[in-house]
Amino acid sequence: MARWFSEPWTDDIKFSVKINKRIFSKKSKYQKIAFYDSDELGRFFTLDGYMMANERDEFIYHEMMIHVPMSVNPEIKSVLVIGGGDGGSVRELTRYASIQSIDMVEIDEEVVRTCERYLPLTASKLRDPRVKLLFENGALYVRETGRKYDLIVVDSTDPYGAGTELFTADFYQNCFKLLSSGGILVNQHESPYFDEMKTIMQKTHAKLKKIFPIALVYQAFIPTYASGHWLFGFASKKLHPIDNFKPDIQKSLNIKTKYYNKKIHIASFALPNYVKQALIIDNPFFNNIK
Amino acid sequence: MARWFSEPWTDDIKFSVKINKRIFSKKSKYQKIAFYDSDELGRFFTLDGYMMANERDEFIYHEMMIHVPMSVNPEIKSVLVIGGGDGGSVRELTRYASIQSIDMVEIDEEVVRTCERYLPLTASKLRDPRVKLLFENGALYVRETGRKYDLIVVDSTDPYGAGTELFTADFYQNCFKLLSSGGILVNQHESPYFDEMKTIMQKTHAKLKKIFPIALVYQAFIPTYASGHWLFGFASKKLHPIDNFKPDIQKSLNIKTKYYNKKIHIASFALPNYVKQALIIDNPFFNNIK
Repeated sequence: MARWFSEPWTDDIKFSVKINKRIFSKKSKYQKIAFYDSDELGRFFTLDGYMMANERDEFIYHEMMIHVPMSVNPEIKSVLVIGGGDGGSVRELTRYASIQSIDMVEIDEEVVRTCERYLPLTASKLRDPRVKLLFENGALYVRETGRKYDLIVVDSTDPYGAGTELFTADFYQNCFKLLSSGGILVNQHESPYFDEMKTIMQKTHAKLKKIFPIALVYQAFIPTYASGHWLFGFASKKLHPIDNFKPDIQKSLNIKTKYYNKKIHIASFALPNYVKQALIIDNPFFNNIK
Repeated sequence: MARWFSEPWTDDIKFSVKINKRIFSKKSKYQKIAFYDSDELGRFFTLDGYMMANERDEFIYHEMMIHVPMSVNPEIKSVLVIGGGDGGSVRELTRYASIQSIDMVEIDEEVVRTCERYLPLTASKLRDPRVKLLFENGALYVRETGRKYDLIVVDSTDPYGAGTELFTADFYQNCFKLLSSGGILVNQHESPYFDEMKTIMQKTHAKLKKIFPIALVYQAFIPTYASGHWLFGFASKKLHPIDNFKPDIQKSLNIKTKYYNKKIHIASFALPNYVKQALIIDNPFFNNIK
């Protein structure tokens, strides 16, 4: 009999993929980690029952997370990745020779070690000499470190469990302090479609907007994330993702991408009316956001 | 016990929605028609087990199908809709006072009559005096009619059963002949992500490209269609969807949209690299397409 992995996108919506086998499962100190093999999505891994990355489309999420900010500020030299234990964001970052240091603060070492073993193409660059792995609480790290960064990538789970603190105003405030004057923060920003995620999207945007002079939302088609309409936040001290866009960076560096391109960069900031409406800050929803 | 409606997106992927009840089900001469009520998507209807439209997001599909061509040629006066039995495309068309006639050729009268009864907000404009309903085979109609049209909207099911003929080169060739010199054809163009639909996308584009001087693909986020990354074809005799775009048409006509806007129009034609690659006509895949 066929076995299926099912993920609840809401209480009333399920996404299911037929699996060949579960190849690993363990409860770490922070969460349940599992890896599965499937024909349709290749190998994928889950945290607490939610799909984090699969071989079929992880390139979309990771390319959009990294190449958007790198095309706005190609001077980025020092990067902080919060979360991102599968290594996909680091892999894309290491394609830029100009980047000198990548500090990755991932709370759960087991995620990194199992992804190195079971998702080696995603985790392929975690041993790059520029990468420093810190197995710590990201929210604590940004409160306490004195280091400055040009780019902070918040590659988190949803705001549950270990990920909760990475969606607070305090966390974003601390990130702001660590960023250089041309600094950019990008974060996974949930989805605008289903109600619960939409609420997180709204609150997250409201918080970033209060702290950063520039705070926008961009989107990508990620079929295996809830609704397939996935958002990223772009927040910065002074650089605007369209006005300061340097469209030929990847070409000049001979960086080949499977999803991202110049037109996609601009298009990803063009939001449907219903999403724009949900993000308007003088929406009554935003009164008293904590 | 909760009841679920499940749709296979591929043999290995399922999308499921919790339903309150099935409110109608009947096998018509052409297909099985069913209507369901759900909390998450409102009421929705299916043909042969595939979701066609739901109250939650049908606006996305129908707005993108209609407002894109109408913003390229606001002179459109006579429209042919093939399929589209739920009435959503007609509803959007009737918002343009400049349109004088809308012939809708839907093979299955039962779809129209049941949508009028069970999805009244979608089917709300089928009684508009400009609308003429013809319950005929669309492929035969375009072969035999002598009428000319400024816009042909191919609002079909997937190429199975009743929808098969609406994906053939003969059909597109006949549509071409019926179109005026500023004429545009738009069609539902499947999805680029899962293999089977990707193949249909490729073949459909190759056929349109051989017949129409201008043939492009555009996309929208439609969470309830397979992969959430849904495509439309734009084919025309001379008008280019970006070069000939008239961005202020909806504003001047005070047409309010929930998804479509000026930036979305342009952004929808910005395809990810992997989709562009799949559509390159000198791809060996395209040899001997019938």
